[in-house]
Amino acid sequence: MTSARLKNLTASLTTFGLDAVVLNPGPTLTYLAGVQFHLMERPIVLFVTPDQDPVLVLPELELPKMDLFSYKIQAIPYGENPSEWGDAFRKAVQILGLDGKRIGVEPRQLRLLEFNYVKAGAPEADYPDASNALAGLRLKKDKAEIDMMRRAVKIAQDALEATIPLIKIGMTERELSSELIIQLFKHGSDSEIPFAPIVSAGPNAANPHASPTERKLQAGDLLVVDWGAAYNGYISDLTRTFAVGEVDDECKAIHKIVQEANAAGRAAGKPGVPCADVDIATRDVIEKSGYGKYFTHRTGHGIGMEGHEDPYMRNDNMQLLEPGMAYTVEPGIYLTNRNGVRIEDNVVVTETGVEVLSDMPREIRMVG
Amino acid sequence: MTSARLKNLTASLTTFGLDAVVLNPGPTLTYLAGVQFHLMERPIVLFVTPDQDPVLVLPELELPKMDLFSYKIQAIPYGENPSEWGDAFRKAVQILGLDGKRIGVEPRQLRLLEFNYVKAGAPEADYPDASNALAGLRLKKDKAEIDMMRRAVKIAQDALEATIPLIKIGMTERELSSELIIQLFKHGSDSEIPFAPIVSAGPNAANPHASPTERKLQAGDLLVVDWGAAYNGYISDLTRTFAVGEVDDECKAIHKIVQEANAAGRAAGKPGVPCADVDIATRDVIEKSGYGKYFTHRTGHGIGMEGHEDPYMRNDNMQLLEPGMAYTVEPGIYLTNRNGVRIEDNVVVTETGVEVLSDMPREIRMVG
Repeated sequence: MTSARLKNLTASLTTFGLDAVVLNPGPTLTYLAGVQFHLMERPIVLFVTPDQDPVLVLPELELPKMDLFSYKIQAIPYGENPSEWGDAFRKAVQILGLDGKRIGVEPRQLRLLEFNYVKAGAPEADYPDASNALAGLRLKKDKAEIDMMRRAVKIAQDALEATIPLIKIGMTERELSSELIIQLFKHGSDSEIPFAPIVSAGPNAANPHASPTERKLQAGDLLVVDWGAAYNGYISDLTRTFAVGEVDDECKAIHKIVQEANAAGRAAGKPGVPCADVDIATRDVIEKSGYGKYFTHRTGHGIGMEGHEDPYMRNDNMQLLEPGMAYTVEPGIYLTNRNGVRIEDNVVVTETGVEVLSDMPREIRMVG
Repeated sequence: MTSARLKNLTASLTTFGLDAVVLNPGPTLTYLAGVQFHLMERPIVLFVTPDQDPVLVLPELELPKMDLFSYKIQAIPYGENPSEWGDAFRKAVQILGLDGKRIGVEPRQLRLLEFNYVKAGAPEADYPDASNALAGLRLKKDKAEIDMMRRAVKIAQDALEATIPLIKIGMTERELSSELIIQLFKHGSDSEIPFAPIVSAGPNAANPHASPTERKLQAGDLLVVDWGAAYNGYISDLTRTFAVGEVDDECKAIHKIVQEANAAGRAAGKPGVPCADVDIATRDVIEKSGYGKYFTHRTGHGIGMEGHEDPYMRNDNMQLLEPGMAYTVEPGIYLTNRNGVRIEDNVVVTETGVEVLSDMPREIRMVG
């Protein structure tokens, strides 16, 4: 499987006029290698060219992982003393004849740490942004990938359903977050969950990127839970918003508006439609309700091995949807210092529309 | 607290002749801000100079976090359309008058994503490595930090003790890892554990950086568990090695050697001693036993907000230990395709020696 992926990448390098691409530990490297390396203070870089065996510079203690590659690859290991590391990178550049060439980089992932080592080895090379050449690789999910995402959604949903009966008024956001994490693992999530759940209630729910606090759940709070699971490296990323005890009429109203916006966003996707249309579909519902200025972020992002990846559901993104693309639909309304709502689902584009991977009830449910 | 930290940094910038430093989401930013930002596709950068209020470029949806800063700071927010982002960075550079100046960077943390935005805003600036100016900040832990590390150690130890009775022959490494993670959260770990536990047995234990697999525990395996907890952002990083059922004499022998090496390493640290001496102390024990070539990594790394940070216990590191420095002591022996042992503790340098934060029994214990 990974050898087909490597072949797609080398073809893409040719298409984009790149002599190589350098990848450090992260989703793209995992996708190509079929094995995970750690992002740490020791630089690890895979060099891929259109026509030679890939070269991997890595610490000696990571050598056992070389057996897991499904294609021929040359390892250049280095020892624990950083004074040796530059030599390993120079050697990689020499073997592949890359100095003075066009070596693509992945700016969202590559750190100056790795970049500086590569550049010291190939000081005369150009380093164009290879994001476009790489984006196509993981953009359209195959059946096996979608199956893993479906499983990641099921694990997440089952974990939250198991957590809901435990929610009580007076419990802190952190306590609820811990319970949910425990349930994620009990239901079979990978040992690295994709992100720490957002559990935010009342005024904290008005912050779309809140971290769980020691604040206790109170009657009248809206409770936003934004959580996901991972299965074999593929993730889910969902949000549901609950009512803690009785909530006021405005809370019920904004929940209903967001639920309608979410439905409109889910319905908007199909092959040939620009990503912008998905954003516009949710935004229209919220703007018509008069809450437009309280929906402060885009409608969604691509999903697969990462929580945030191409394609992005923004009203300026004219990229056309294609079968196999997967993304979130997550409109929200955030009333600063008061309350907030978000409802998020994961969808994958089919030949005729989208399949919604998540099916947990979206209606407001009372907890506590 | 964070305002004192900011003051230490601005003093350090002056000492190292830097006009500014730029920080993206990561431990250093969290340390200075007292609030955590996400590393994502939207660039977030804090600009710190010796004599002006810091400037933070960030997405609008992160603005609610600005209230959490304990010192004056200027926010430059940007919207969801990436075409606006460059302007925000140019504005930050202009406000601080940084073009043509010396802007320090943190290569281990800063991605090309953020670097490219900063550089486009300040194309005439120099970008020296600021790691030395930053390392001093988090290198010596204060009492509050050590208390949090002590708590992170206790959570980790209690979690593993609660897991041990559940270990059975026939259980997979992944199952055991999941149980341990559940126990970490039950015992109060932060919602982001510092790293996915390494649970590796038999031949897998010979890989120091193994990921848990579907392999089942078998009698005769050595079982390496390398795990940690986080408490308020401070972490623990420990390893114990168990015998699954009866193990052979060589397994018992290498376990005993590593236990002696660990004790020698723990005893070697005190103020004024070079880090190298800690490495040499463990390595001597293992080399004298004849297994020297099977101890393939350095003895340890600094620990605090990160699993791997300064100071590093390598035999070429002449950095002198000082009170408040905290690090791991983790010698190992790895017999490729057969078995492995590692025993890891966390210590902090005192006025006269070291305090060992971890006290879980190190003797070989039979499980299963």
